[in-house]
Amino acid sequence: MGLQGTSRFNRRAVKVSEAQQRVLAAIQPLHTEKAALWQSGGRRLAEKLVATSDWPPFARSGLDGFAIRGADAAQASPEHPVTLRVVDAIAAGQVARERVGPGTAVRIMTGAAVPDGADAVVMLEQTADAELDGQPAVRVKHAAVPGQNVAPPGEEFRRGSALAEPGAVIRPGHIAMLGSFGYAELPVYARPRVAVFATGTELLPVDAPLEPGKIRDSNSAMVAAMVVQYGGEPVVMGTLPDRVDAVVEALTAALAVADCIVTTGGVSVGDYDVMAAILSRLKQQGRNSRQACQNREGAEGTMPVGGEGAESTMPADVEGAKPHDCDAVERFSCDGTLLPEPESAVSPDGEDDSNRSIEAELHSLFQDDSRVLFDKVAMRPGSPTSAMLLGGKPLFALSGNPGACFVGFELFVRPALSRMQGDPEPLPLAVEAELTESIIKGSPHERYVRAKLLMREGRVLAEPLGFGKSSMMASIPEAEALLVVPPGSKGVSSGERVKLIPIQR
Amino acid sequence: MGLQGTSRFNRRAVKVSEAQQRVLAAIQPLHTEKAALWQSGGRRLAEKLVATSDWPPFARSGLDGFAIRGADAAQASPEHPVTLRVVDAIAAGQVARERVGPGTAVRIMTGAAVPDGADAVVMLEQTADAELDGQPAVRVKHAAVPGQNVAPPGEEFRRGSALAEPGAVIRPGHIAMLGSFGYAELPVYARPRVAVFATGTELLPVDAPLEPGKIRDSNSAMVAAMVVQYGGEPVVMGTLPDRVDAVVEALTAALAVADCIVTTGGVSVGDYDVMAAILSRLKQQGRNSRQACQNREGAEGTMPVGGEGAESTMPADVEGAKPHDCDAVERFSCDGTLLPEPESAVSPDGEDDSNRSIEAELHSLFQDDSRVLFDKVAMRPGSPTSAMLLGGKPLFALSGNPGACFVGFELFVRPALSRMQGDPEPLPLAVEAELTESIIKGSPHERYVRAKLLMREGRVLAEPLGFGKSSMMASIPEAEALLVVPPGSKGVSSGERVKLIPIQR
Repeated sequence: MGLQGTSRFNRRAVKVSEAQQRVLAAIQPLHTEKAALWQSGGRRLAEKLVATSDWPPFARSGLDGFAIRGADAAQASPEHPVTLRVVDAIAAGQVARERVGPGTAVRIMTGAAVPDGADAVVMLEQTADAELDGQPAVRVKHAAVPGQNVAPPGEEFRRGSALAEPGAVIRPGHIAMLGSFGYAELPVYARPRVAVFATGTELLPVDAPLEPGKIRDSNSAMVAAMVVQYGGEPVVMGTLPDRVDAVVEALTAALAVADCIVTTGGVSVGDYDVMAAILSRLKQQGRNSRQACQNREGAEGTMPVGGEGAESTMPADVEGAKPHDCDAVERFSCDGTLLPEPESAVSPDGEDDSNRSIEAELHSLFQDDSRVLFDKVAMRPGSPTSAMLLGGKPLFALSGNPGACFVGFELFVRPALSRMQGDPEPLPLAVEAELTESIIKGSPHERYVRAKLLMREGRVLAEPLGFGKSSMMASIPEAEALLVVPPGSKGVSSGERVKLIPIQR
Repeated sequence: MGLQGTSRFNRRAVKVSEAQQRVLAAIQPLHTEKAALWQSGGRRLAEKLVATSDWPPFARSGLDGFAIRGADAAQASPEHPVTLRVVDAIAAGQVARERVGPGTAVRIMTGAAVPDGADAVVMLEQTADAELDGQPAVRVKHAAVPGQNVAPPGEEFRRGSALAEPGAVIRPGHIAMLGSFGYAELPVYARPRVAVFATGTELLPVDAPLEPGKIRDSNSAMVAAMVVQYGGEPVVMGTLPDRVDAVVEALTAALAVADCIVTTGGVSVGDYDVMAAILSRLKQQGRNSRQACQNREGAEGTMPVGGEGAESTMPADVEGAKPHDCDAVERFSCDGTLLPEPESAVSPDGEDDSNRSIEAELHSLFQDDSRVLFDKVAMRPGSPTSAMLLGGKPLFALSGNPGACFVGFELFVRPALSRMQGDPEPLPLAVEAELTESIIKGSPHERYVRAKLLMREGRVLAEPLGFGKSSMMASIPEAEALLVVPPGSKGVSSGERVKLIPIQR
């Protein structure tokens, strides 16, 4: 079965946290761009922004009333009101033409600049209209103190002080704050463009009638919606048959337009698992390059710490090497496993010419910064979930099972998208919660169970959803969190404290 | 000061819950439309959708392996494996050409249709390749039971069973589920178009340099971003001076394009609070219409239960009445307060001609289903927050103070937008949380304090943010919830249980 037959070998499971770290170590924030202020909500700020003036920019009245000298009304009371001559009235946006001297007041509106000479504002409701020698006046009926209802300049912000840090998600409150300081556009990280496709000859488009043995590709639409939810722009590329040539062609096209690729299906150990086959081949190439390197330098120490497929840099002389430099060692992996001949890398109906063409395309796809990040994860569901770099861009090969696909996206794609958007802490934070019902099923690996996150009577509760079957689609929409069941022969009992990763809703 | 001078009178505070109920009672869901499946995330479903087939549609293999008759391998073990002849191999999307009879097996992939005759699937990893009489065979090394790793047709869904109810927010999990049943487009409620503007002669556009006594209009952008966050489409109309004619013109334009209007500023008791003036005038008209009605029918009973400005229907003969029918009673409100002459409804620089034109525009604005819903709320901040219906469309007049504007949006506009999008339960649910620090400031009315919602060690905690000053802009972006401080002379102590309304982030 050629290239495909290699897919079930040599997969070593890494822990979820290790897999996440490998992803994040391989990804940089994208370029930045400008977004109109009101359209920047939910995006991530690309620069630190500072106050462009003091705030408030002038002594500001906190309410509608009269600006006075506080000392003038220090003794005022309903029984002994103080009457002050009204020398001016400030409409909003105007500044007073008159100063406030002893015994005088200026009518003022909320937010207006307190006139020179005044140091307090008395509330309109605590005054009454009056006359003094035939001139307009105001009767102040409550004692005033200097400073009351006046926000001095710079009370909230000093010019130059930080308003928001790079990487912050822009909330409506940021928009109000930044707008006040004249930021009509905000520097933000670009939205990651994410190519999405599903592999599987059994897949029909969503709008097709069912056929015997076939199902509709619903994962592509779900993944696209999750990309949108986490700030990316999906490029939906449809479904592909389980053929290496078709997938290689699609990957090449995807790399030309996208910052990231997410595929579903084809990662398991089946004979037709084409993503697994491509991963396996990329891993061979990584080994071969290392082996070539070791053969030449006789240095075991160049094996990177991350283990197979996890190298992040290669010596300069190998980095630029053409694939055919590796031909001499291509038939053996570094652990001695016999690898398929290049000519065995055929699609089921391939011929010699197309084989060579597939080889050429694979080599071209695997240029530059291409390597396997992980091809098995110690978790349920979705242990065959894999990730690689292709030309420096991350590819996530998620399970074709909708539940496992969902979990794989939350655990690996979501942090990757966050990192690309400049998130300084892209791993979702877990919270502690009390389990509402026992999970009796043990698992040799960490199990990620979709759950509801409830807040009741001040407590955080985790209610597991359909944990029996990873294919239970009905529980995916209800999920508000992933509940982490530690590895072990027994499950977790109701009332025990569990770790819960909230999901964006 | 004419029309504006009336704004400080006759405002009676209603409770937040009552104000919310008045809003919801006045609003219907918008029309529905179709959205492409993957673009429907976050929108609300307009119809109940059902399973269009059983799911799975056929007996489905849960993993890669061999379809067998379970009875054939009931006794299999590593020491005593059972060898079965492999009669066929099913690629994904294919159906078996051969039936599985006693002593035979068919190679099968995850998700493929289990062939006739087989009732169990054994995992590839629990088998080994073999030969039997020179024919391909498989050695089964573990005991099998009928039904294992086979999902029978309809196990998850029966044809016709409900998948999602009207009003449900469409999550990525719905998209996977609905895609599986062939829903390539989903019926959703339209996004509310929300006209947004700010009133205040003191306001500058965000990109303008500061001027003495003026500030930038940052509320419009914040409100627009909140509209986006809660599923609407903002129509940003900029800032308006404190002039009735300008605002009436803008409201007329807004009603022509939007389903809802949100204004900020101009709702307080100041001389230039133009939204308050318009509300006051609408209230007069409501009273006058009722009074005219009572005069004619001599029936007190036509006064609606909701009290002033809260009537929801009017008798048919008054409903269609032209505004001039009310002239005879126009100078007195139903509680006897002297109302301004029509000709006093001037903008500060208005003339007689423009007065008449404003009157005409106001009358035209107030046609059909126009009424005040509330013009004062028993809460802090933002007690002058108001709402009216204009031609059947809701208008929310929020405070110009950014903090109060934010709270007013969360409490009143958010539920309105949810209802327009078909939410059957549009009021945000509150949770209980433990206060992390004391709030010493009492308030005669409920106080809504922006807060962080923390989950620590299984407990829900509320950390108040900048509760001292409602104008503290810096705390708005950090808010994850509104903490409800009950009315009373004292505040709430650290450790006490409080009500917390989570905010969408």
